[in-house]
Amino acid sequence: MVMHSDRAGTSTEPSVLLTDLYQLTMAHAYFELGMRETAVFEVFVRRLPRSRQFLVAAGLAQVLEYLEGLQFTAADIGYLATLDLFPQPFLEHLATLRFTGSVDAMPEGTPFFANEPVLRITAPIIEAQMVESRIVNLVHFQTLIASKAARCVLVSQGRRLVDFGLRRAHGAEAAVYAARAAYLAGFQATATVAAGRQFGIPLTGTMAHSFIETHDSEEQAFNRFVATQRHPTTLLIDTYDTERAAKRVVALIQRLKAAGAAGGVRGVRIDSGDLTAQAQLVRGIFDAAGCVDVEITLSGGLDEFSVARLLLADTPVDAFGIGTQLDVSQDAPSLDIVYKLQEYAGRARRKRSLGKETWPGRKQVFRRYNAQHQPVSDLLALSAERPPGEPLLCEVLRDARRCGEPPTLAASRDFCRERLAELPEDLRKLEAADPVYPVQVSEEVQALAQEVDRVER
Amino acid sequence: MVMHSDRAGTSTEPSVLLTDLYQLTMAHAYFELGMRETAVFEVFVRRLPRSRQFLVAAGLAQVLEYLEGLQFTAADIGYLATLDLFPQPFLEHLATLRFTGSVDAMPEGTPFFANEPVLRITAPIIEAQMVESRIVNLVHFQTLIASKAARCVLVSQGRRLVDFGLRRAHGAEAAVYAARAAYLAGFQATATVAAGRQFGIPLTGTMAHSFIETHDSEEQAFNRFVATQRHPTTLLIDTYDTERAAKRVVALIQRLKAAGAAGGVRGVRIDSGDLTAQAQLVRGIFDAAGCVDVEITLSGGLDEFSVARLLLADTPVDAFGIGTQLDVSQDAPSLDIVYKLQEYAGRARRKRSLGKETWPGRKQVFRRYNAQHQPVSDLLALSAERPPGEPLLCEVLRDARRCGEPPTLAASRDFCRERLAELPEDLRKLEAADPVYPVQVSEEVQALAQEVDRVER
Repeated sequence: MVMHSDRAGTSTEPSVLLTDLYQLTMAHAYFELGMRETAVFEVFVRRLPRSRQFLVAAGLAQVLEYLEGLQFTAADIGYLATLDLFPQPFLEHLATLRFTGSVDAMPEGTPFFANEPVLRITAPIIEAQMVESRIVNLVHFQTLIASKAARCVLVSQGRRLVDFGLRRAHGAEAAVYAARAAYLAGFQATATVAAGRQFGIPLTGTMAHSFIETHDSEEQAFNRFVATQRHPTTLLIDTYDTERAAKRVVALIQRLKAAGAAGGVRGVRIDSGDLTAQAQLVRGIFDAAGCVDVEITLSGGLDEFSVARLLLADTPVDAFGIGTQLDVSQDAPSLDIVYKLQEYAGRARRKRSLGKETWPGRKQVFRRYNAQHQPVSDLLALSAERPPGEPLLCEVLRDARRCGEPPTLAASRDFCRERLAELPEDLRKLEAADPVYPVQVSEEVQALAQEVDRVER
Repeated sequence: MVMHSDRAGTSTEPSVLLTDLYQLTMAHAYFELGMRETAVFEVFVRRLPRSRQFLVAAGLAQVLEYLEGLQFTAADIGYLATLDLFPQPFLEHLATLRFTGSVDAMPEGTPFFANEPVLRITAPIIEAQMVESRIVNLVHFQTLIASKAARCVLVSQGRRLVDFGLRRAHGAEAAVYAARAAYLAGFQATATVAAGRQFGIPLTGTMAHSFIETHDSEEQAFNRFVATQRHPTTLLIDTYDTERAAKRVVALIQRLKAAGAAGGVRGVRIDSGDLTAQAQLVRGIFDAAGCVDVEITLSGGLDEFSVARLLLADTPVDAFGIGTQLDVSQDAPSLDIVYKLQEYAGRARRKRSLGKETWPGRKQVFRRYNAQHQPVSDLLALSAERPPGEPLLCEVLRDARRCGEPPTLAASRDFCRERLAELPEDLRKLEAADPVYPVQVSEEVQALAQEVDRVER
């Protein structure tokens, strides 16, 4: 299973210099000033996008691998030396630097809300500061995509969902991690081969319009493609005239059946036009000919809203290919996610910048459930508090050692499915619930904020 | 200058399997069917986002490196064998496959419009098909960001623009290529260290709020940070109270001057609140104290509209840090970019799917200028036509060999600046011009489309 490790392929090799320069200038200052105390930073989203009722935590596996692999190579140090910013003793310190700290985090697949820490880093200040940029980058992107994907899953009524987004994902890593995040949130497959290899996600894909167009006729293209396939395949039927193509598919199936041929046609894909009308037309043609098992896949600029609309309109469909809208999270392409200092050298800290104030201290999220085991409210409390409710953050790395085996992607996917299933119905809808899910702040956190503010800075 | 090569760091290592599965299933079918003829594919954007008047071509350097490096490793082949889709002879064919074709493209930095090919691939069908996903992925992302960045540059009135977007860019590669694309379009620097190393882009960055918060007081943090810096630095002044912080900066500068100390304060950064009011207040404090050279950098959720608004309001500002909005192209996070078959085996081809019809044949874009050398219209013609105007696509790779030295990033940046400067004033505005820039389709292209359609498929 080495091929399915998170380490293969695109992942995290470039990470140590994948940081903002200010992390290094601050690290240098901490180094020069002899500041070595423990810092506590928390990752949270300040406000949810208007079009999200909850987010789905994702990317933790990549964060842990990044932290475990954190190391400056000689080439990295050589490059930094050219910047004329850092003296030799600091560069030598960097050369020996490893991440020695601890991580608490919500398991991947956990739904969460604004102001709730999804991940906490506890480490000597230089280490904790340096890793900010990449940790935010990793948690942000997969959380963004898992959250979008979860919305698709929640309205899909059991239809198969496949990630088609590679070509318009923002680069190589985005494509591969989008496939992972979507699978985590309940997608069934991806078209991205590198993601299949890296994470063991099932792959799908058969033909594009260009295959049809390279042939003298669509009929010839269908016949010849099927002849080359080891397994029943999916034919793309909207290149010229979808109705005529569907009839050609029926003729092909009947010919194959008569010949007792292996392989054959598993289904068709429609990628343009009025998808409901086209799918109904095609389903009618297939059913009338006794081809009731031939599946219909729909694609072409789809998102959770179009999936919901298509199903509401009783569109006969077995699978959806969802591409660009998913992989760039088109309606909310970023989250207001931050990594903020909550404690240094044993003292709580907070930022008071206008509109960007933070809650100080090491915190935990306690989720309360009703008798039907549906979440009813969350409480943002200090991690030392013991209010009722389920604590959501778990210790996953302690002094650079893993706390137990990390879950497999399949296990995280199961966990996510269970967590999504228990959400109250209002939260599972695409449109915003009113009132929104309540996240309360404990009196101890509020008191700590006041205490921190009393100190003149 | 090896460190600045496009090959270092994140770039294109994972690319050969960074493809959609259907590229491989089609390649397999072409292989089985003995189809080896030359295919011509063109990359173009079907429609511009509503909030873009033009796009800026970018990513060509990465496309060429990808094509030159295209190769399946034994591990890649081993993975594909596990899929139970491909017979051994095809896998053996893949193992020896290289890109042997040609590329014509608009130089990076060229402004372009809907339906205009920015890149054309001419190669044996298997090769030309296989590279679709990654080529679109590469051209899409950098074009997306360069186009957004160009809008920021056009309204910046000469202020310095710095890319701050790493943390919310969609993954590692997106962060690094966003920095490249923004620099190409006229940004002055990036905060992303890996992009500085990979592309030689100037780096900036000094401190975050956390540095202030780790200290007992802001004053102490300022003093101690400056003491550790080799060069004059930038202090972040909005952690607690911006006005008080500005006065502390003045006191610090006066103390340093009195002591004849090296280093010192180059400027300040404000990251929250009413930026115009804060910057005016701070500028007033500095100027009154004779600190007229202290620069003001503004950041915090900025985009081209806020830059324009801030300058319109006479905000005293020397530089803008632009992050998330740039790196995810928040208002238009994807382009409707495609890679379409235009010719196979010497015959023009087109797709007629509803709403997605394409113009067939090998095409060229001819740009016409007025007497002031401003572009006035483009003509989409066949590449064999010789209408008046400047042909925008140039041959850059012929039979897998480079046609001349590729431009450096600095040269492409100069080229982009010139091209942006010559755009008519209406196109340089943020809001859409009326009428939009005209792109005509030649009679020969239209006639060819009719001819292609006459053939029954």
